[in-house]
Amino acid sequence: MAECAFDVVGVGNAIVDVIANVAEQYLVDYDMVKGSMTLVEADDALLMYDRMPPGVEISGGSAANTAAGIASLGARSAYIGKVRNDQLGEVFRHDMRAGGVEFATEPAGSGEPTARSLVHVTPDGERTMNTCLGISAFLSPDDVDADLVASAAITYCEGYLWDREVAKDAIRFAMEVAESAGRVVSLTLSDSFCVDRHRDEWLELIGSHVGLVFANEAEVCSLFEVDDVDRACSLLAEMVDVAAVTRSEAGSVVLSRGDRFDVPATPVARVVDATGAGDLYASGFLYGLSTGASLARCAELGSIAAAEVITHLGARPLVPLHGLI
Amino acid sequence: MAECAFDVVGVGNAIVDVIANVAEQYLVDYDMVKGSMTLVEADDALLMYDRMPPGVEISGGSAANTAAGIASLGARSAYIGKVRNDQLGEVFRHDMRAGGVEFATEPAGSGEPTARSLVHVTPDGERTMNTCLGISAFLSPDDVDADLVASAAITYCEGYLWDREVAKDAIRFAMEVAESAGRVVSLTLSDSFCVDRHRDEWLELIGSHVGLVFANEAEVCSLFEVDDVDRACSLLAEMVDVAAVTRSEAGSVVLSRGDRFDVPATPVARVVDATGAGDLYASGFLYGLSTGASLARCAELGSIAAAEVITHLGARPLVPLHGLI
Repeated sequence: MAECAFDVVGVGNAIVDVIANVAEQYLVDYDMVKGSMTLVEADDALLMYDRMPPGVEISGGSAANTAAGIASLGARSAYIGKVRNDQLGEVFRHDMRAGGVEFATEPAGSGEPTARSLVHVTPDGERTMNTCLGISAFLSPDDVDADLVASAAITYCEGYLWDREVAKDAIRFAMEVAESAGRVVSLTLSDSFCVDRHRDEWLELIGSHVGLVFANEAEVCSLFEVDDVDRACSLLAEMVDVAAVTRSEAGSVVLSRGDRFDVPATPVARVVDATGAGDLYASGFLYGLSTGASLARCAELGSIAAAEVITHLGARPLVPLHGLI
Repeated sequence: MAECAFDVVGVGNAIVDVIANVAEQYLVDYDMVKGSMTLVEADDALLMYDRMPPGVEISGGSAANTAAGIASLGARSAYIGKVRNDQLGEVFRHDMRAGGVEFATEPAGSGEPTARSLVHVTPDGERTMNTCLGISAFLSPDDVDADLVASAAITYCEGYLWDREVAKDAIRFAMEVAESAGRVVSLTLSDSFCVDRHRDEWLELIGSHVGLVFANEAEVCSLFEVDDVDRACSLLAEMVDVAAVTRSEAGSVVLSRGDRFDVPATPVARVVDATGAGDLYASGFLYGLSTGASLARCAELGSIAAAEVITHLGARPLVPLHGLI
């Protein structure tokens, strides 16, 4: 395997988060399923934004958060995702590059605006999201820089991006390029509702391309339509080289070739905003892999990075993560 | 005096803040004067943004922050300021209205974009700002809704807006309408460099129109070109009905018709971001006036509101201020 220019390239929906604190009753009043991510059309997003309390805009997007975390930890990180040439697109591009992530996907000159996710944070720190994917969902194989992908040790794709056919093609193309170059292909299952919508396609995708899967308990159970998390983890572990399953405050479990490692969560005083916990877990884990750490240590690094991001609003680290490890 | 529809109407630059944490050395490297607000042209702002670390976007603008704080305290608050019909303009409008502020100034359909302020926060919580005023500086008398101003008990204008001739005319017009309707006219001096640029005009403006002035120590000293704060405060008090001078961690002093009240600051565990301290002091003070509180109590309410906003990033309250008083 040739020397790699990047440790990880992330592929996902390029999104700016609009974050506001709401009461529990707000979710009830507007029929929102706590902890979920719901895709909404532009018109509905406007209505929802209208009734949302004053917010804070912070660059987000699952794989983008992961890429930002990897750079903050000190590894070489790149990102592929689509924004418009509008103000929020500029904000997103700035935040990626200023955070040390290589991000060169050409912004679209026309079409829908940059994606926005309305993130409602309840007093318990849980986040409930309504996402308007905008132009981000139109990432195409043409946007995937094959040289970049081939030069990254790990290609990390986000399940959320699996929506429009063109974006599915982009993911398949990135995975095929990475595979041909002898690189590691990784996928995060993103959301249990996503898993439910795309179960058959994802089982096929994982079985044929993916070596490393990230998921939480609900997602892995949904994938195999079982209630028993341990059983779901075992089934996943049979399909891939490494499965990393996060369990919120119970930490995470890593399965690989018959081994199993249970790693605790890093304690925090108070969860302010859980947005990005899974994304930053992946940052720590992938950073660990890039430094040749053991799988148990990779999971530990994931816990440390996740702990930082849930202690404040927003899904990007507020302090250089390298100082925490 | 007829019953008022609003307690306060704020008039100022409608700005979205881009906030990032930087080291002390960053200010040195880029020749920035700590604690200052510098106006920059669009090209320079782009360069500065390019080198700025990843940021967080939060609606700002001095009088707009004050108006948001007044609404959060529970009084009837309105605002006049100019945005473009662009994404950041939408964000600004949403945050005002969602925070309970009446804000109906028509967004510009052409011209410069919505104003942006690059706010650099050092580890001591001090903020150093580079502001690109964009369309906000073009607020004109036509944008000032005379009926709205006449229907507000207090008209509160921001010194920062005193830049282009058209905006000066807008402020003068608002003050004249308020005066004719028998309302209170208030001005915040905003920044000692602003005072230095506009001293003669402001002395004339204060002497002829303004009943209530907000300033910090540097601003009031600059206004009269003296080093002695007490002497500067006395000189100001001779010109207006009420002068409220903030003194950072030393609290504030209020002077009115021969009386003087020294009021301590509300203690905070740690100053995270001083942005908006003066703006929110004005919120508390003006809210106090609207409820008929004593001047000493008005200053206390100012201290309480300011204390909330300096404990987190951004210049708008993150919790309903009414719960704190």
